[in-house]
Amino acid sequence: MNGKIGIVGLGTMGMPMARNLIKAGFVVTVYNRTPAKAVKMAEEGAIQAMSPRDVGATNPIIITIVSDTPDVENVILGPEGVSQRLRPDSVVVDMSTISPEATRNIARQLREKGCHMLDAPVSGGEQGAIDGTLAIMVGGDTKILDRCRPALEAVGKSIVHVGSNGMGQTVKLMNQILVAGNLNATVEALMFGKKHGVDLDTAIQAIKGGAAGSWQLSNLAPRILKRDFRPGFKVSLMQKDLNLVIQAAEAKRVPLPATSLIHQLFNSLQTASEGENGTQALAKVLERLAGLQID
Amino acid sequence: MNGKIGIVGLGTMGMPMARNLIKAGFVVTVYNRTPAKAVKMAEEGAIQAMSPRDVGATNPIIITIVSDTPDVENVILGPEGVSQRLRPDSVVVDMSTISPEATRNIARQLREKGCHMLDAPVSGGEQGAIDGTLAIMVGGDTKILDRCRPALEAVGKSIVHVGSNGMGQTVKLMNQILVAGNLNATVEALMFGKKHGVDLDTAIQAIKGGAAGSWQLSNLAPRILKRDFRPGFKVSLMQKDLNLVIQAAEAKRVPLPATSLIHQLFNSLQTASEGENGTQALAKVLERLAGLQID
Repeated sequence: MNGKIGIVGLGTMGMPMARNLIKAGFVVTVYNRTPAKAVKMAEEGAIQAMSPRDVGATNPIIITIVSDTPDVENVILGPEGVSQRLRPDSVVVDMSTISPEATRNIARQLREKGCHMLDAPVSGGEQGAIDGTLAIMVGGDTKILDRCRPALEAVGKSIVHVGSNGMGQTVKLMNQILVAGNLNATVEALMFGKKHGVDLDTAIQAIKGGAAGSWQLSNLAPRILKRDFRPGFKVSLMQKDLNLVIQAAEAKRVPLPATSLIHQLFNSLQTASEGENGTQALAKVLERLAGLQID
Repeated sequence: MNGKIGIVGLGTMGMPMARNLIKAGFVVTVYNRTPAKAVKMAEEGAIQAMSPRDVGATNPIIITIVSDTPDVENVILGPEGVSQRLRPDSVVVDMSTISPEATRNIARQLREKGCHMLDAPVSGGEQGAIDGTLAIMVGGDTKILDRCRPALEAVGKSIVHVGSNGMGQTVKLMNQILVAGNLNATVEALMFGKKHGVDLDTAIQAIKGGAAGSWQLSNLAPRILKRDFRPGFKVSLMQKDLNLVIQAAEAKRVPLPATSLIHQLFNSLQTASEGENGTQALAKVLERLAGLQID
């Protein structure tokens, strides 16, 4: 039997995380902007709250997992936000991917209320959330992390403390630089092979186990070949993250030549109304440039 | 007890491959432009030949593994080349990485002599050659591949037939597009993290098992952090390969936006006399752009 925990945000990631917390024996209070999902979770054993504020009032640990920086600021600091009736020494664990700078600001405001924050963004996508195998990068105090570890272990497989508040988000942005670069390399390699008449399935088998190997190649190239563009991870969310990367890079004057280029290629996808597709739809940009489908 | 085999080229890759062939029971005849290495192999049980032509005259299967397209053309087709005294039905297995177009041309000329060719470029680097665990991508006739399989199994772990002559090289170039893209993403992510004060060792541990994971991240990022720029795979050879990629892409009008950019970044490394370093020295280009060492 575990303790009480709140969760704000029942989207693609939040919903399966709530289920895994219930399964692990937590008493889970949920809030979602669209109530239908909270009603659904109440049927599965959760307590439905009417606002983030109410979640904060009744739980010592509150997970927020929503879309973007303003959403997180709103559900934590807004007039109906978690922080409004938070009891002293409570912990807000933000598992969204948002600005490291905004994270440090939220952490400071929670500290002024005698509370704590962890930034704990995740990698592993919807499937990882369902399986409870997310990789979690945590910024914040290690003692506070220890307090939250049972909850994080219910939703993730790898929980790594990477530094103070904001550092979890910074490492997540490193993660996204790699995801974007490896995916784009996959797409360029497939297009190169296609135009040269290569049997792409066979080629992937020949090279994925060696120095060219990556998660993106092994997992997304086969979907591209099947023209399965359904989201694991949406283009619109990738662009939200790459915007955060570019802003943070700008602030510290870090030149990111290829990441910037790939960000622009994803812009082309959004212009073409592909934002709700999975990131593997990046293949379509190169297909348009090359005037040929990969498969 | 296996049969007779010749090998032309005892460089970083050829030497350990010759050793593995001897170990597997082949009678190995060797030739190398610089004789000292052939003398060394003779001490280890090989037969030293005085020219590629002599290797061709006495062996039913001859492996060539030299640097670039003109070198392969020379050791196979040149006046002292393997093809000059080749017996009918012999097989030349070129394991260098060279132009797919030139490969098809060589194969045609060997066919006119009643002989065969396989293009069988490898991935896995010096360590893979030493361990006999290379990944081999083979273009050519499958019956000819079957004839050469015992020799290839002595030097490699994965042997995949990917199509007709030239296709082995084309798939190897796909491999190099991925290697370059994944390495550059690794370098950009590390620089981003460094400028934001991230503990990079910890960050790599946190993300390498997930969607950001790649062979390049797992194997080369730790070397960059130790400032170990010794070659697994040299910058100059990577540039030779990326030149082949760009040429082949140009021939088929394949746009490769990021690969072209990364090719230019590697040019900067060669200008700075870093050609003999390992490809992970790409970190130094970004370090110069950013005015900061990664570690």
